[in-house]
Amino acid sequence: MKKLINDVGSVVADTLRGVAAAHPSLRVDVENRIIFRRDAPRPGKVGLVSGGGSGHEPLHGGYVGYGMLDAACPGEIFTSPVPDQIATATTGVDGGAGVLHIVKNYTGDVLNFEMAAELSGDEGVEVARVLVDDDVAVRDSLYTAGRRGTGATLFVEKIAGALAESGAPLAEVARVGREVNDRSRSFGVALTPCTTPAAGTPTFELGDAEIELGIGIHGEPGRTRAAHREAREIVRLAMDAIDDDLPLSGETLVMVNGMGGTPLMELYIVFAEVAAYLEEKGATAVRSLVGDYVTSLDMQGFSVTTCALTGELTRLWDAPVETPALRWGR
Amino acid sequence: MKKLINDVGSVVADTLRGVAAAHPSLRVDVENRIIFRRDAPRPGKVGLVSGGGSGHEPLHGGYVGYGMLDAACPGEIFTSPVPDQIATATTGVDGGAGVLHIVKNYTGDVLNFEMAAELSGDEGVEVARVLVDDDVAVRDSLYTAGRRGTGATLFVEKIAGALAESGAPLAEVARVGREVNDRSRSFGVALTPCTTPAAGTPTFELGDAEIELGIGIHGEPGRTRAAHREAREIVRLAMDAIDDDLPLSGETLVMVNGMGGTPLMELYIVFAEVAAYLEEKGATAVRSLVGDYVTSLDMQGFSVTTCALTGELTRLWDAPVETPALRWGR
Repeated sequence: MKKLINDVGSVVADTLRGVAAAHPSLRVDVENRIIFRRDAPRPGKVGLVSGGGSGHEPLHGGYVGYGMLDAACPGEIFTSPVPDQIATATTGVDGGAGVLHIVKNYTGDVLNFEMAAELSGDEGVEVARVLVDDDVAVRDSLYTAGRRGTGATLFVEKIAGALAESGAPLAEVARVGREVNDRSRSFGVALTPCTTPAAGTPTFELGDAEIELGIGIHGEPGRTRAAHREAREIVRLAMDAIDDDLPLSGETLVMVNGMGGTPLMELYIVFAEVAAYLEEKGATAVRSLVGDYVTSLDMQGFSVTTCALTGELTRLWDAPVETPALRWGR
Repeated sequence: MKKLINDVGSVVADTLRGVAAAHPSLRVDVENRIIFRRDAPRPGKVGLVSGGGSGHEPLHGGYVGYGMLDAACPGEIFTSPVPDQIATATTGVDGGAGVLHIVKNYTGDVLNFEMAAELSGDEGVEVARVLVDDDVAVRDSLYTAGRRGTGATLFVEKIAGALAESGAPLAEVARVGREVNDRSRSFGVALTPCTTPAAGTPTFELGDAEIELGIGIHGEPGRTRAAHREAREIVRLAMDAIDDDLPLSGETLVMVNGMGGTPLMELYIVFAEVAAYLEEKGATAVRSLVGDYVTSLDMQGFSVTTCALTGELTRLWDAPVETPALRWGR
C-alpha cells in the first residue's frame, strides 16, 4: 500500500490541518474534529450539521460554507462521528433558530446523531433530522437497516442549505430536505475495491473482468457481481434500477459521481449515456454535476443520483453557494 | 484493464458528447473536437485557445468559459491536437482582437500550434503564443526539448483569461501570460503509473515501495525513483526542487493537484505539509487549489505548482470565472 500520509493514526487530523490551511472561509477545530463555517453561528439562521466517516471527501467538509452546511463532523475512515463531537458542532452553530441534522442512513451514524440530538436538546437547542436513504441497490446491508444514504446527501445539503440561508424556519428546512430525499435515487458501480490506510489491503476482491453492481460507499458488498462490459450497458443496468424504483420523468437533477479513483473522462462518457437514457424515458437532465463528490478513497467506479425537480427545488439548487467543493453565484 | 468506455476508438468523441450534455454554457463540435464557449467569438475580445492530449481532464475543456478559455482542442489520449483542429478553433474564437495560444511545452504541441498559427494567419487572424514550461523536474524529456508544461497552464489560462475579459489587447494578454509562467514552478510525484485505454497496461512499472519523483503528466519517466516515505518527506523533496529553482517568498498561489486516482484526503494532507514548508521559507499560500486539475488518467500521486503573486496577478486570479472546473464570482 502506498498512500500520501504521515501516519495511519493521524490521517484525519492531518487532513483537517490541510483543510484549515487551504480554506480561510472555514474554521477548523482539529481537536474536536469539526469543520465550521467561519461566521457560524449566524443569529436567526437555522444551522445545518452533517457528518459521517472520513474517506468520502469532499463529503461532508467540502460542503461547509455559505448556502450549505454550517458544520461537518468527520469520523475516522468509514466510521461514524461520535455523539460528543456532533453535539459540540450542533451547539456551536445554533443561532437560536435550531439545527438540522442531515444523516446518511447507516446504523452507527443514526445512533450517534440521535444521541447528539439528545445532548444538544439538553443544552436547549432544537434539533430536527433528515435521514437520507436514496440508494436503491440493497434493502438492508452490512451497515444499514433499510436503504443506504449516498449521493442524495449532497442534494439535501445544498437545497436545505439554500432555504436556511433565506431565513426559513427549522420545520420548513427539514421539510424541503425530506422532499429532496424522497425525490432522489442512487445506484453505484465499482470497478475496483478501495484500500483504507489502516487495513492496507483492498476491502474486497474483484476479478480483472468483474464489476460490482450496487456498491456502497464503504466497499461493502453490492447487489450482484457481473462481467465487465461497455459503459452504455453498465449505465443501463444502473439506470434501470433507479427507474424501476421511481420512474424517471420531467426535469431532473443528475449527478454522475466518481468514487475517487475514476478518470474524469470516464465520468463524462458515463454522463453521455445517462443523458441518453433519460431522454429515452422522456426526462431531461436540466441540472447536472460530473465529478468526484461522494467518494470511497481510491475506488474506481461511479454512482448516479437523480432528483425529480420541482420549481422550488430548482430555484434552491440555483441559489448562490460558496463551499470548497461546490460554488456558484458568488 | 477495466475502464468505463464504450470502445477504445471512441473515447474522445464519447467524452465530448458527455461534456456537451453536461454543460449548456459550452458549444461542443464533436466532429472537429473543439469545445467552444457558447458565446464565442466575442467582438473586440482577445480569444484564448489551448489544447493538448486528452487524459488530463479537466485540462483543457474544463476551463472553457467566462473569464478563461474561449476554446479547447483535445487530441487523442496523450497525443497533440492537430493543426487543422487548432486553426478551426482559432478562427472560430477570433472577435477581431486576435487570439492567444496557450501551449504546454511538448514537441508535438509546439509544432502543431505553430502550424495552426500560420494557417490562422493566412485567414487574417493575429495570433500570439504563451509557452508554458513550469516543470522543474527535468531539463529535456521523452517528449520535450526544455522544460515540460504542467500545472502552471491552468494559472496562465485563468489569469490571462481574466485580463482578456477586461478588454485588454493581445500584447498585454500575452505579456501577463508569460509573466505567470515565469513566476510559476511545478514538481510532480507518482505513486502508481497510469493505464491508457489503447495500451491496456500500465505506462511503466513501479514497485510496491517505490515512488517516481519528478513525474510528467504522460507517465514519462521523472527525475529519479526513490523509496516510498511519509507525506511530509515527499513534500519536502518536491518543494526543495521548486525552491532551488526559484526561491519561494511572499504571497504565493499554490495548487496541490491530484493525478486522477489520488483520494482527496491525501491531497489535503499534502497541502498541510506544503503550507508548512512555505511558512518556513517566509512565504504564504494566500490563494490555493486542492484537487484534480491537471491529471494523468488514473495515476495516483500529486503535483505542486507555485506562482509568486503580484498585486495585478492576485486581482486577476480573483476576477470572476465560470467554467465547468473553476468557478467563482458568478
